[in-house]
Amino acid sequence: MSKVFTVEYPILFSHCDPAGIVYFPRFFDLLHRAMEDWFTFGLEERFADFVMEQRLGIPTVSTQVDFMGPARFGDSLKIELRVLKLGRTSIELAIDSFIGAQPCFKAKHTVCVFSQATFKAIPIPDDLRARMETYLSPPQRGGVPA
Amino acid sequence: MSKVFTVEYPILFSHCDPAGIVYFPRFFDLLHRAMEDWFTFGLEERFADFVMEQRLGIPTVSTQVDFMGPARFGDSLKIELRVLKLGRTSIELAIDSFIGAQPCFKAKHTVCVFSQATFKAIPIPDDLRARMETYLSPPQRGGVPA
Amino acid sequence: MSKVFTVEYPILFSHCDPAGIVYFPRFFDLLHRAMEDWFTFGLEERFADFVMEQRLGIPTVSTQVDFMGPARFGDSLKIELRVLKLGRTSIELAIDSFIGAQPCFKAKHTVCVFSQATFKAIPIPDDLRARMETYLSPPQRGGVPA
Amino acid sequence: MSKVFTVEYPILFSHCDPAGIVYFPRFFDLLHRAMEDWFTFGLEERFADFVMEQRLGIPTVSTQVDFMGPARFGDSLKIELRVLKLGRTSIELAIDSFIGAQPCFKAKHTVCVFSQATFKAIPIPDDLRARMETYLSPPQRGGVPA
Repeated sequence: MSKVFTVEYPILFSHCDPAGIVYFPRFFDLLHRAMEDWFTFGLEERFADFVMEQRLGIPTVSTQVDFMGPARFGDSLKIELRVLKLGRTSIELAIDSFIGAQPCFKAKHTVCVFSQATFKAIPIPDDLRARMETYLSPPQRGGVPA
Repeated sequence: MSKVFTVEYPILFSHCDPAGIVYFPRFFDLLHRAMEDWFTFGLEERFADFVMEQRLGIPTVSTQVDFMGPARFGDSLKIELRVLKLGRTSIELAIDSFIGAQPCFKAKHTVCVFSQATFKAIPIPDDLRARMETYLSPPQRGGVPA
Repeated sequence: MSKVFTVEYPILFSHCDPAGIVYFPRFFDLLHRAMEDWFTFGLEERFADFVMEQRLGIPTVSTQVDFMGPARFGDSLKIELRVLKLGRTSIELAIDSFIGAQPCFKAKHTVCVFSQATFKAIPIPDDLRARMETYLSPPQRGGVPA
Repeated sequence: MSKVFTVEYPILFSHCDPAGIVYFPRFFDLLHRAMEDWFTFGLEERFADFVMEQRLGIPTVSTQVDFMGPARFGDSLKIELRVLKLGRTSIELAIDSFIGAQPCFKAKHTVCVFSQATFKAIPIPDDLRARMETYLSPPQRGGVPA
């Protein structure tokens, strides 16, 4: 049984643009926050320690996002995070968001684990990989996920 | 001859994360700024008037970005913007960035023109479309662009 | 008995600078969020409706902030909000923050109520004023508050 | 003759809130950028090297800001920076901004020089102090500056 990590964040004044909807770069702040909370609460790997103590990081390799509907000031954005694929150093995530039942953005977001000392990608630590695997989404019907 | 819109922005303290490199959502602020400057200086369609007077906007339909190398505090980020495709309401852009000769991010970024009154996409105004066409990138060898 | 509105927010990766501490302009995002939450949860005046439906706003008149200690990535910032003075159109707030028992910033922050239609300050609506008065801090011993 | 450091920045889409005016925390991003540019271009002390090579920083000690008028999307914000006082470790700045001839915000902003290694304030390096002194504003008639 694969797990889905789910969080919900309020759309704040600071997220919104002169049209009263979320200025799209702020969605990436919320997407990043979902990854932070997934580490800390989902994987039980406190993300602040991962960065500040272990001197690791998760720079973005690539992101592919479809924006289906706007989010307005005062909305509540629900975010669902799944693991699509675990490479040696990389993590491919599906990060989908909703306002109520309405899809907001759907992202396929790939990061790698890197060392702040060398600025090079490093293998995902084994114990972390094991915990990430519990969020691995089963392949969709017909083949490769997403 | 197709034009390329080129700008260069400094990487500021506020763009950078605890690892001293650009926190990736800030790249989208810079990408958005490149689109604003393209409107105002490239297309000679002042973007502030487009939004505040004409009550139009360019919400993101989708974005697909590869991050090739980090940008560090103090770097200068060069951004090149081309038009890949003009739909009836949508604009597909190639937005590539560099630190010196080193690629930083490469985006295929699609927006549409919408009305703030109806929150619906509207056809790209004819005169604006004509000016955008001068930035239309010729199809790459072998077929469809990007 | 005067009330104090208290909230607590996590210090996220996006708040922090290359030294690993909160980049000070982000403290104002958190201060603003505390005001939003005070409206919505403390005053039971949903701030999103106040801005988007009633077309009102609370622009800053002045702010005076002492920064006593840094906040680090992973810290939890506790914010306490009190009303120091209610003018005809203006609201003077004391907004103090702490990391555990350690003071972080202490602000005297004054906003006014304004109409988005006229961009002019307007009198604080009576029913809102009544609810704000319950957060009015008693004058400190020796005179003027703060 | 005391120097004034002057810069001008465009008000971008990302600075503005649902009322179409600058969301006040973004003014602090612009104020910070003015300090960065003052270091790099005014003092000829490249701020990125100051932070990333020398591992120093300029955390805020206190700020006091009056907001006189809004800045709107598309405006150009002129910022003037003067030194009011140089302490052993601290720097008190007057940072005033204008839209055309119209005052926008006026700040008295105090930072200190600190070491990222110890997180303690350190004396302003002598050569830097000498260059800062050229921006020292003469005391106003009647006494204390600002």
